[in-house]
Amino acid sequence: MVREITRDTTLCMSLAGRPGTFGTRFHNFLYGELGLDYVYKAFTTSDLPGAIAGVRALGIRGCAVSMPFKEAVIGLLDELDASAAAIGSVNTIVNDGGHLKAYNTDYVAIQHLIDRHRLDPSRGVVLRGSGGMGKAVASAFRDAGFTRGVLVARNGAAGAALAERCGWTWSPERPESQPGDLLVNVTPIGMAGGAEEHALAFTPEQIAAASTVFDVVALPAETPLIREARRQGRPVITGLEVIALQALEQFVLYTGVRPTAEQVAAAVAHARN
Amino acid sequence: MVREITRDTTLCMSLAGRPGTFGTRFHNFLYGELGLDYVYKAFTTSDLPGAIAGVRALGIRGCAVSMPFKEAVIGLLDELDASAAAIGSVNTIVNDGGHLKAYNTDYVAIQHLIDRHRLDPSRGVVLRGSGGMGKAVASAFRDAGFTRGVLVARNGAAGAALAERCGWTWSPERPESQPGDLLVNVTPIGMAGGAEEHALAFTPEQIAAASTVFDVVALPAETPLIREARRQGRPVITGLEVIALQALEQFVLYTGVRPTAEQVAAAVAHARN
Repeated sequence: MVREITRDTTLCMSLAGRPGTFGTRFHNFLYGELGLDYVYKAFTTSDLPGAIAGVRALGIRGCAVSMPFKEAVIGLLDELDASAAAIGSVNTIVNDGGHLKAYNTDYVAIQHLIDRHRLDPSRGVVLRGSGGMGKAVASAFRDAGFTRGVLVARNGAAGAALAERCGWTWSPERPESQPGDLLVNVTPIGMAGGAEEHALAFTPEQIAAASTVFDVVALPAETPLIREARRQGRPVITGLEVIALQALEQFVLYTGVRPTAEQVAAAVAHARN
Repeated sequence: MVREITRDTTLCMSLAGRPGTFGTRFHNFLYGELGLDYVYKAFTTSDLPGAIAGVRALGIRGCAVSMPFKEAVIGLLDELDASAAAIGSVNTIVNDGGHLKAYNTDYVAIQHLIDRHRLDPSRGVVLRGSGGMGKAVASAFRDAGFTRGVLVARNGAAGAALAERCGWTWSPERPESQPGDLLVNVTPIGMAGGAEEHALAFTPEQIAAASTVFDVVALPAETPLIREARRQGRPVITGLEVIALQALEQFVLYTGVRPTAEQVAAAVAHARN
């Protein structure tokens, strides 16, 4: 699967408080499939400036950035792509000869998914969550022309600020949605191993009336929300689509190579195992 | 050869002005043979403090240090093993939870080779070279009880200082050696691609009278000096023995596992290809 590593092999990596397995398996699989002399490795750190100094000093080509580093890392970088500047959150660093440019491929992935699923900007959006990923998702919807939205977030300061940024309204509680609304979950509700693992971010009645149900939670692949939406025959967008697409965009940024849809599908299947 | 890399795979690395291929191939081969979840990658840097900050912050388990970083790195580390303190030169860093301890496995390797080849401390030593490796070799001989030595080095300051440290004499020119002396080359003379690739560090007459001829140059495996010594039937110690043994000691420090002699021989054969 992985080719032999030599002195010339290019290293890409991730930095996360709790590293997952998806990125490592996704990228290394595609390096093997495409015969690229790259290797990918996940790291955690308790010293973010030291870690970024290492990325720069060791010529590490790319670095994915996850919680809790997505905002703190900004001050350590040289340039922000529009995707990261738009939301003040970074999930990808590309190192060109010591010049570190930041991107947010979550934002880019959500933009692609809005296109791919032909979501209609005249729909209302009800979005739960206001963390780093919530910012990426809400901003992508706003920038795709979704002007009617309710941002539901218990964190008042973050929620109200993000809602204002999008020209949406903010609600601290789960709101009544309107028939035909898009329902979007960007909280940990339904995440495997979480405190609300078996909960639904929206009620079965809301789901029944939704035009599309979008859950950014990727583990499990079928969350309680997605399962309920499918049971009711509603169109869904899963978190797996988000992480696959954002990882693909990272892959293209790091290597300059865009794999085929079949290769990406195989990489996702491999990474999920 | 290399197992699939996961988020839990331990990274070891090297830092060199001009990374070679030996370490990467040697270590990765043995990781595969022994089923260890490690991976090894060579790096260069123009920012040594940043690189060492990265080693610490990313939890990189081990780091080999080569020219030109062997002395400059000392001030960036937490603790010096006796092998590094004895000569003020580091070729190995072990990272225990952010605590960086420095070793010199070149020094340890030379000690082992003096034992393995049963070199007699009553012999005189004529050693050419006074760089970082010269310090390691001369110090190992001195500490093994070789009290009669001539250090031959064009660099007067370094040469005189090292000779004094060993209680040997210093000579700026190639000296007359005595019959039965050990001849040791720690200069680039005879190194493939170097300016003195085809030169001999000692004359054929000196070689004929030597008790043992020791060339620290490892590329090519058979240097002009080693070839001439073999032609004359003199006992030899090659640079390949030095790099294999020092790499083995690094391997043991990083992993806590000591491969068998057969495994080491296979790794060396693989690494030379």
